[in-house]
Amino acid sequence: MIGIFGATGFIGSHLARRLVGAEEGLRLVSRRMEANFLAEFGDSCECVEANILEPLDISPALNGVKTVVQLISSSSPGLENKHLVSDIRNNIIPQVEFIQSCVAAGVDRFVFISSGGTVYGPAAPVPTPEDAQCTPINSYGVTKLTVENYLRLYGMLEKIGCVILRVSNPFGPGQRFRRGQGLIPAILDRYRRNQPIQIFGDGSARRDYLYIDDLVDAIQKAIDMPGEVNFTLNIGQGESRSISEVVGAIERASGHIFEKEYLPGRPTDVKESCLDISKANAVLDWTPKTAFQDAINLTVKAEFVN
Amino acid sequence: MIGIFGATGFIGSHLARRLVGAEEGLRLVSRRMEANFLAEFGDSCECVEANILEPLDISPALNGVKTVVQLISSSSPGLENKHLVSDIRNNIIPQVEFIQSCVAAGVDRFVFISSGGTVYGPAAPVPTPEDAQCTPINSYGVTKLTVENYLRLYGMLEKIGCVILRVSNPFGPGQRFRRGQGLIPAILDRYRRNQPIQIFGDGSARRDYLYIDDLVDAIQKAIDMPGEVNFTLNIGQGESRSISEVVGAIERASGHIFEKEYLPGRPTDVKESCLDISKANAVLDWTPKTAFQDAINLTVKAEFVN
Repeated sequence: MIGIFGATGFIGSHLARRLVGAEEGLRLVSRRMEANFLAEFGDSCECVEANILEPLDISPALNGVKTVVQLISSSSPGLENKHLVSDIRNNIIPQVEFIQSCVAAGVDRFVFISSGGTVYGPAAPVPTPEDAQCTPINSYGVTKLTVENYLRLYGMLEKIGCVILRVSNPFGPGQRFRRGQGLIPAILDRYRRNQPIQIFGDGSARRDYLYIDDLVDAIQKAIDMPGEVNFTLNIGQGESRSISEVVGAIERASGHIFEKEYLPGRPTDVKESCLDISKANAVLDWTPKTAFQDAINLTVKAEFVN
Repeated sequence: MIGIFGATGFIGSHLARRLVGAEEGLRLVSRRMEANFLAEFGDSCECVEANILEPLDISPALNGVKTVVQLISSSSPGLENKHLVSDIRNNIIPQVEFIQSCVAAGVDRFVFISSGGTVYGPAAPVPTPEDAQCTPINSYGVTKLTVENYLRLYGMLEKIGCVILRVSNPFGPGQRFRRGQGLIPAILDRYRRNQPIQIFGDGSARRDYLYIDDLVDAIQKAIDMPGEVNFTLNIGQGESRSISEVVGAIERASGHIFEKEYLPGRPTDVKESCLDISKANAVLDWTPKTAFQDAINLTVKAEFVN
């Protein structure tokens, strides 16, 4: 049985669609499932409401699960760094306790979605390989890195295989806008509301953006890969684009020209982030297949044409 | 004012002896101070009993302090990995809260003693430079690395300079034996009790051992260094010795030949650990001065001849 924890989110629901009908069985787990989610998945796989903050919830949700995909995170990359200690309490501790519960439940493989955009920090070479020094400059990055370190430790001490996917900035249809959670959904939100877009800094900050279908490919390969696993892999496009290039691509896809407001850059933003994805290519035989403009076209079409 | 937190421990008391009479003033802080410690230091500097687990204790202990040397750790490198979550609660959270208290109190510089022997893990090149990948394989290493990451983040977000010293295995006179806390005090404890020594593995595991006076030199330079600081520096001998070589050096110094019991190696022990100390040499103008056999001779003499 494959268990997706955080199945109702953006990545989770795309992954669920891909894995419905998987031979080993599929269980979707989320704190809360809305009616349209249950309507889509309720007949084709197990849907369980459970909160990883509640150990009593988790034990039945893990029953029979051999592969866990852990997508839950209670903080966001772009939020401010004002609550570092509560991030430890509310994010790191529950996630480490969840890994412990998985070990106790006999889970064989734990696929963890980490953050390729924040764990490395500004000192890393670009494109960044997995063995670069990690000096994250925001709380989200420190949190993800700490959970990674504990997961690796459990992978060594216990019989649980771990695959850590350091994912760049995923985007695609169905990504809801939340503050601090990605440039592309923020721009599409402004488009939807016919508002100007706000750009932090001069628009030159570069990020590695990955189309959701390519990310789902990588997660599926991490699930299916035979043998013992203990890997940390970058999953990104392997190319960076500036904010201005992203805006341009959306303008081309939508035919809408945005009014732009420039705001001061945030000191904890990395200037350029781009992942070296050669290790994932070698280990998982994975490579992203969707060109950036095509991915933007697909996203805009799905969100606005249907 | 310089504040040493954890002043009654092995490193703390050596550092206190060095800094007594410092122009900027010295405050020694520890959870509990015994009579002989107060007899030695009570007249020459401020001695304050305070517990960093208690925020109400810490605020007066930090009053007027510009440089903090943080030596407190509530776990030990060699202990087992059974209490990962309580390590987060009881070690990481109080230490991050302590850094926050220092920021709030207007501390200018925070010198943190991290662990050069555990933060890097087995994949690091030997000798290990500071920018090597950190994949610690025990809870102590993950804990130290996490506190480092938070300290670096505060160093970036707030007006507090940070110097992280990744110290190898310090030893010297006055180091009390505690389980999991260093090979040399463990051997000297056996010598004191005329017992055989226990060796994990075949005696070939290599570590970087540093004499306490050389470590105190490095900490003093980190305190005194002018200008803004934001450094992570390895502090070690820059040479590794096997367990068997350490035993031999102690046998030469003491004239006592040990009976040896060989026990199974521990899976979370790194095979060889040796620090590249060239960055500390360049940044602090520091280099260790005491040859290993001389340092062992000094230690044995201080412990057994007086």
